[in-house]
Amino acid sequence: MAAGWQQLAVAPLFFLLLLLLLSGVLTLPLGGENKRTPTCGYESCHATKPNMLNVHLVPHTHDDVGWLKTVDQYFYGDRNDIQHAGVQYILDSVVDQLLKNPDRRFIYVETAFFYRWWKRQSSGEQQTVKQLVNEGRLEFVNGGWCMSDEATTHYSAVVDQMTMGLRFLNETFGPCGRPRVAWHIDPFGHAREHASMFAQMGYDGFFFGRLDYQDRTRRMLAQEQELLWRASDSLRAANGILPNGYNPPEGFCWDQSCDDPPIRDDPDLEDYNVDDVVMRFLAIAKSQATAYKTNHIIMTMGSDFQYENANLWYKNLDKLIRYVNARQGNGSRVNVVYSTPSCYLQELHRANLTWALKTDDFFPYADSAHDFWTGYFTSRPALKRYERVSNSHLQTCNQLEVLGGPVSRNGPFGEGNSQTMKKAMAVAQHHDAVSGTEKQHVANDYARRLADGWRHCQVLVSNSLAALTGSSAKRIYCDNLNISVCPLTESSKKFSVSVYNPLARPVTWPVRLPVNGTAYTVSDAKGQPVDCQVVPVSRATREVRKNRGFAINELVFQVQAPPLGFSTYSVSLLQDGPPPAAATKHRAPTAIQNKVFTLRKSEIGTIVSLSNLETGQSISLTQNFYWYNASDGNNSESDQPSGAYIFRPNSSTPFVISQRAKTETVQNSVVQEVRQWFAPWVSQVVRLYSDSRALELEWTVGPLPIDDSLGKEVITRLDTSIKTCEMFYTDSNGREVLQRKKDFRPTWNLKQSEPIAGNYYPINSRAFIKDDKDQLTVVTDRSQGGGSIHNGSLEIMLHRRLLYDDVRGVAEPLNETSAIFPEGLVVRGRLLLSLERPPAAADAHRPLAQEAVLQPLLTFVDGGLSPDTRLEFSGLQAALPPAVHLLTLTQWDGDSVLLRLEHQFQSRESRVNSQPVTVNLQKLFSTLEVIGVSEMNLSANQWKDEMIRFAWTPQTDSEAPPPKASGDASSTWEVTLRPMEIRTFLLRVALR
Amino acid sequence: MAAGWQQLAVAPLFFLLLLLLLSGVLTLPLGGENKRTPTCGYESCHATKPNMLNVHLVPHTHDDVGWLKTVDQYFYGDRNDIQHAGVQYILDSVVDQLLKNPDRRFIYVETAFFYRWWKRQSSGEQQTVKQLVNEGRLEFVNGGWCMSDEATTHYSAVVDQMTMGLRFLNETFGPCGRPRVAWHIDPFGHAREHASMFAQMGYDGFFFGRLDYQDRTRRMLAQEQELLWRASDSLRAANGILPNGYNPPEGFCWDQSCDDPPIRDDPDLEDYNVDDVVMRFLAIAKSQATAYKTNHIIMTMGSDFQYENANLWYKNLDKLIRYVNARQGNGSRVNVVYSTPSCYLQELHRANLTWALKTDDFFPYADSAHDFWTGYFTSRPALKRYERVSNSHLQTCNQLEVLGGPVSRNGPFGEGNSQTMKKAMAVAQHHDAVSGTEKQHVANDYARRLADGWRHCQVLVSNSLAALTGSSAKRIYCDNLNISVCPLTESSKKFSVSVYNPLARPVTWPVRLPVNGTAYTVSDAKGQPVDCQVVPVSRATREVRKNRGFAINELVFQVQAPPLGFSTYSVSLLQDGPPPAAATKHRAPTAIQNKVFTLRKSEIGTIVSLSNLETGQSISLTQNFYWYNASDGNNSESDQPSGAYIFRPNSSTPFVISQRAKTETVQNSVVQEVRQWFAPWVSQVVRLYSDSRALELEWTVGPLPIDDSLGKEVITRLDTSIKTCEMFYTDSNGREVLQRKKDFRPTWNLKQSEPIAGNYYPINSRAFIKDDKDQLTVVTDRSQGGGSIHNGSLEIMLHRRLLYDDVRGVAEPLNETSAIFPEGLVVRGRLLLSLERPPAAADAHRPLAQEAVLQPLLTFVDGGLSPDTRLEFSGLQAALPPAVHLLTLTQWDGDSVLLRLEHQFQSRESRVNSQPVTVNLQKLFSTLEVIGVSEMNLSANQWKDEMIRFAWTPQTDSEAPPPKASGDASSTWEVTLRPMEIRTFLLRVALR
Repeated sequence: MAAGWQQLAVAPLFFLLLLLLLSGVLTLPLGGENKRTPTCGYESCHATKPNMLNVHLVPHTHDDVGWLKTVDQYFYGDRNDIQHAGVQYILDSVVDQLLKNPDRRFIYVETAFFYRWWKRQSSGEQQTVKQLVNEGRLEFVNGGWCMSDEATTHYSAVVDQMTMGLRFLNETFGPCGRPRVAWHIDPFGHAREHASMFAQMGYDGFFFGRLDYQDRTRRMLAQEQELLWRASDSLRAANGILPNGYNPPEGFCWDQSCDDPPIRDDPDLEDYNVDDVVMRFLAIAKSQATAYKTNHIIMTMGSDFQYENANLWYKNLDKLIRYVNARQGNGSRVNVVYSTPSCYLQELHRANLTWALKTDDFFPYADSAHDFWTGYFTSRPALKRYERVSNSHLQTCNQLEVLGGPVSRNGPFGEGNSQTMKKAMAVAQHHDAVSGTEKQHVANDYARRLADGWRHCQVLVSNSLAALTGSSAKRIYCDNLNISVCPLTESSKKFSVSVYNPLARPVTWPVRLPVNGTAYTVSDAKGQPVDCQVVPVSRATREVRKNRGFAINELVFQVQAPPLGFSTYSVSLLQDGPPPAAATKHRAPTAIQNKVFTLRKSEIGTIVSLSNLETGQSISLTQNFYWYNASDGNNSESDQPSGAYIFRPNSSTPFVISQRAKTETVQNSVVQEVRQWFAPWVSQVVRLYSDSRALELEWTVGPLPIDDSLGKEVITRLDTSIKTCEMFYTDSNGREVLQRKKDFRPTWNLKQSEPIAGNYYPINSRAFIKDDKDQLTVVTDRSQGGGSIHNGSLEIMLHRRLLYDDVRGVAEPLNETSAIFPEGLVVRGRLLLSLERPPAAADAHRPLAQEAVLQPLLTFVDGGLSPDTRLEFSGLQAALPPAVHLLTLTQWDGDSVLLRLEHQFQSRESRVNSQPVTVNLQKLFSTLEVIGVSEMNLSANQWKDEMIRFAWTPQTDSEAPPPKASGDASSTWEVTLRPMEIRTFLLRVALR
Repeated sequence: MAAGWQQLAVAPLFFLLLLLLLSGVLTLPLGGENKRTPTCGYESCHATKPNMLNVHLVPHTHDDVGWLKTVDQYFYGDRNDIQHAGVQYILDSVVDQLLKNPDRRFIYVETAFFYRWWKRQSSGEQQTVKQLVNEGRLEFVNGGWCMSDEATTHYSAVVDQMTMGLRFLNETFGPCGRPRVAWHIDPFGHAREHASMFAQMGYDGFFFGRLDYQDRTRRMLAQEQELLWRASDSLRAANGILPNGYNPPEGFCWDQSCDDPPIRDDPDLEDYNVDDVVMRFLAIAKSQATAYKTNHIIMTMGSDFQYENANLWYKNLDKLIRYVNARQGNGSRVNVVYSTPSCYLQELHRANLTWALKTDDFFPYADSAHDFWTGYFTSRPALKRYERVSNSHLQTCNQLEVLGGPVSRNGPFGEGNSQTMKKAMAVAQHHDAVSGTEKQHVANDYARRLADGWRHCQVLVSNSLAALTGSSAKRIYCDNLNISVCPLTESSKKFSVSVYNPLARPVTWPVRLPVNGTAYTVSDAKGQPVDCQVVPVSRATREVRKNRGFAINELVFQVQAPPLGFSTYSVSLLQDGPPPAAATKHRAPTAIQNKVFTLRKSEIGTIVSLSNLETGQSISLTQNFYWYNASDGNNSESDQPSGAYIFRPNSSTPFVISQRAKTETVQNSVVQEVRQWFAPWVSQVVRLYSDSRALELEWTVGPLPIDDSLGKEVITRLDTSIKTCEMFYTDSNGREVLQRKKDFRPTWNLKQSEPIAGNYYPINSRAFIKDDKDQLTVVTDRSQGGGSIHNGSLEIMLHRRLLYDDVRGVAEPLNETSAIFPEGLVVRGRLLLSLERPPAAADAHRPLAQEAVLQPLLTFVDGGLSPDTRLEFSGLQAALPPAVHLLTLTQWDGDSVLLRLEHQFQSRESRVNSQPVTVNLQKLFSTLEVIGVSEMNLSANQWKDEMIRFAWTPQTDSEAPPPKASGDASSTWEVTLRPMEIRTFLLRVALR
């Protein structure tokens, strides 16, 4: 990176960057301390032989950042009774073994582990490792904090975790520590958005191992296991390369965890087997070569937590290479080398061929006819929600760390930090974390880490708000407002609530606080009264909160909060007494409505229609809850049960939980809601706030009964009059939207063998169905699985409780209980429904979904506020344009911050918003002066203009190439964003 | 050793040894090449703290030289599906880890493995290892080729295997490679003879782990886990020290094969556990200290095949030592050090205490009330016999290598060697080899190695005999004469048979050859006719040989062979025709007899009495076969079944196989025999050769029927009129004899819980019962288990076939079948019975037993011999005195040979023979001139006069110390042997 720096002198950013260089701001994050000319990266690859089949042996370990054991248990090798795995020993051992033979190579992937190990090494050991990295003998690939899940993660958190891992590598090792390839060998299906992100992070290639078995068969025959992936409709494209899984070929696993025969090359001992080993290897290499295009093939020599005793692997690999290559003297045309994925990729690139093009994604993933990995889209819905809420908390924490200045980290409430939360969120992105495919005790550990991170953030947030408000009054956090628990509001007669909005535009937000009074006054930051209502706590809420709270009522009002800022509302008890008699009505009207929507319900208590008053749309809409009976693995077609990974209903027809719902209706000036009660374990509130542009369906599901010994997978299903023609649409990691068609895959002729599970897709933030007139969009509050099985229908899986393990390793049935819910977990969540005309739908669902992701943070102060307290604040000079989302604002180091701005609309998605938009960085912040800027790649480990990736040629490409990446037209400070573009800036800032 | 050499200048042997030094003969075996002053051994021990409890942590691995896998599979780490174990990696890893911290220590035990590893190392790696050895960081203990079994081995083979292992260490590492302690942590009970051998090999101490659970309990209470062991009635005594097993304390196993929690000392990570680990360790150390006498305790930090990834162990041990010792700053009085058994032993020695005295042995071993490890005394009787025969072959091979000169190794029949057989025999001594406690495929491997060794020896023997006879006629070996199979004799009309006698005195020996003629002439080396007879092959023999041979008759005659020499007999077919009608008699006489014995049998076909005509003794003697019904592990007292290790009949009363026997009698001038047929699977021949001083009982047992689903353990039982008073006598490893008393142990009050199995003892070469008048001695042809359950009775277990594994790890039922015997193994063997007056009994059984161990080797030459063939030869100038046994004569290197002479009588055992006896070494050999001699310790890895062992004081000792070790009275060449003494000499020789 230090060398690259010089080139910047002739770049447009010259003057500014030179300034930054002199000030030293940017040198630390981007430069390693080792000044020797490194020979890492592509230059360090072993020579291959052009006229031979070259076999690239890639020694690697796949270290799950939590799965059967917690991340720290994995690191230390604790609880080896569960699984033998100790990452500290893997790294010890690999380094020792690399030193023994300079030809040897190793790749390492998960920085969460590497970081833990690195900080325990002596400086001498660290120096040794740096040398190995500089010589390309130890190479980092992927390099994020973890190898994130692709089906259940939100891009915001993935970008964060990748940034954290890559930053550590960059700061520790400099350019030689920068991974050249992405490496997602284990995630259970692959999201197009991940490919898009990896392209924007500068990776030259993307390797993975799991794809549908039918897809793989076709690709092997067609030699399309190497391919180009156009990963965005709006942006251009990473290339993805598929090796054959991430395990070694059969018979060649020499890890301590394997039983394959070692190479026995002492002729004095029994069973000399060199000839046999060489022959078997040559046969496998030649067979594998038939399914790939070039005279280079890759073999992944390693697997889960392997190389704890690397000597076993390397000793035998050394021999394998020696003996196989010795055959060249006898005319063999196979050449074996130690290699890395990047060295293999370089050879593919040198081959200068054209490659198959892929534009959709790799969901759903099936490894056999009845084994669709679509259950984990929903598994552990509570954890999935907690992860999503935590991301919101973390972004708020990051923003307030910047806005509050250094006092945030060490202020009146003590030492706070965002780092703990960042790490907790980063490990939670792992493909056995938020995915829900870990053991229960590990899920608990992820949650505990998030809670711990939030505790550290709370101190920071309190410090920051103290600075921004000028008041050091103690701030109370109520994390259980979704179940009406908040000891302060339940007992206090006078308190204030500050609403911090992490979005770059103002929001209106409903607030519901548990109270025991029957009448309150609420006033806003300007002292104006705010319309508020008291409604009784519902039966469902009382049941789910148990003895954690005792409020009988909820105080409901709507608040507004400025961009990147807060507004403070004061609440005072007016009188104590019984709730207004009319608050809930058992004989309810047949409709509820607000300014936008009218929702009708039937006599049996269920929804029947939805109308948009503004657009004049009206659709029939019925909604109900159903459960699929999970296969127990005991049937004639397959012995596959439903489990943490796999969704496999034993019938395509779900059981309705109840045809009819008991209802209560609440209608007042703030909110209108129908409280539906379907069963002791399923209830819902259908809700319209007066100002809302979405219909809220707040579902409460659980504990799922299992006394009938039947595993249950509960869905909510929306059946409409929309003519869907077997299509529906889902987002990819919360960003772009993909079209899904029933029983269809764009790139191969699907033989559908699971009519439900085989039509399920991940829904990270939204799904929609539409026809020419109507688009019904559902915005979720977490990742869920769903599908459109029938015409006009959209179903979303909410909760799962299963009695069998699905034999993918986790070795536990997904049967969640907890200390609070020993009889089975109860989960509550919300769907937000938007009915719009299709051309304008994105204008509604894009901001709606961002509001669901980055929700306001409420903090409370008991009693009255001192008069000089600042009640309202915005960190921005003005709201950003509607198309622009402020994705990241976080402290980078002493006086620099990382900023990501995102165009949140796809091309052609919105008539008004799918246009390039320009923002002036100098005019962005209200309290920060931006005194330097330099653009970086998405993961902030490379200057944007140094990011030069391999160019690849697709076999066929009907589309025109996209316009050039945004040049910054008028001035350094004006940045233009094209649809879906994310731009990443390192800003040097000072408090104004 | 180089330093020690100087001291020899003042020793009596000065002149001779100086000569040898100049000639270079003795420098190689005894001097390492590294000349630096080493600080190995006791000097390299870490300092301890006198006022604290010192905990000696001993990192070690226990590497079975074959058990569940073959020795080579273990070495390479092949077949890890059976058991994860790869010794090559253990040594790789330990060396790497020792280099990382000079405080670390490791002990290594099994030279069979170390040798395999060493020869694959580069010279640089070898130099590194030498450095570790010279600094005492890598220390060899025990150091034999294997850790021999103690219950089923013969001392001759044990001495050989120890010598081979220790020689390798000595030649490779010099004095620093010499083990200071014996280390038998795994063998299943301990023989006194092993302690005796170890004392004579110069070990300062002897550690083991397994002893009777009642014995251990008592010793723990009495602090007698350290003790002195007077290991010979005739010689003095090794001290044996008992640690508590060979595993680490519970919770402190950090091997990759263990699941104990690692030390988690990063306070940033979950589950910091340093305080917990330290507290648990201190508690264990203090508890353990209560059962030992000094302020030093030992903890064995390792176990079976551990340290394959030594980093796991050492990383945590480093931390343990650091954190435990850090507590000393807070007043802790526990000090932990890396240590070795010798360092621990040195501290015990420094304590200068007195120690409990032990004079008996540690058999039988029970680890629980119903779990007596007495089954393996007999397990795999065929392998046990093959091992014993192989020892005889090896000694012959060794002797002929010396006597035949260099041409033996490369002569007319090609290249031969004794080394292959030596190694095969050495691994066969392992405590899961000849013990019969290995898996079937491993047993097959031991046998295959022995067969392979014998093939190499056959070439050597043929070459040697060609040199000694002057004839290069092809020699034929018939290894299956015991079942009347020898293709040559079956078809040839004229052949010769040479009888090589490996004993140092002449022997008479019966020869039985399968033939198809009915009359032969036999003439001896002088051309004199020899009385010979033709008898029909018995039904039992036809059944057991199956289609491996087709002879209808056996030619029987007695041969004589000179000491360490051969005699050749010529055989010619006289006529073909039917066998003499009178050869077998179905209506047999009631007695058979020869010059010494008369044996009577009853009308039902069984023996009833035995008389010695010379001594006028006569006893009633009945003999029959019985089987114990093996426990299947399903009963109220215990779930322990009989298995490869454990003997547990489910009733104390065995079933008789048949009360009566069908008989045939053969009587002629050479042999008289009664052929008894008890059942399809049990038959016997009771046989008296005309010149024999023993009654032969040749039993044939098998296939044991299991179609009744009952495991069977077959015994032969001799019931006599001898008044045994609950006593009987067994040998220890074929040497000294121990008295056994029913339901009694000399050193603790036995609670007998298994009336049969708890009274079984190993019989390696003989057992006897006696009263004042009569001693009936039974000499066995292999190791077997036996007991005296009833007055006058002696039973010996012959064969076992079991249907259940006995849960000691081998994980197979002992149910032997083979390609030839798919229905179950048939085993044949011989007991030799001698009836004598007690004071003279040893004069008969000592030579008888040696004849059974070192039996003559027959070689055949087809057709006539050329006239200049030498037909008779003795390697000795004269037979040695009856008390002297030539234990070892083997080539050492170019012009030196190793000689061991043994006094084969115990003190007071024989009026005539239990006296010191003197042999003149210069007058020993007929064809070799002895030009130099130096005496060594028993294992030939140290000069005898440099062998200075720790002195230890017993608590009580009523016996007077034995006379000083034999000084060589008159001249250098005259060596005197006291009862049971073995003296070992390295001789420089030249062919006369």
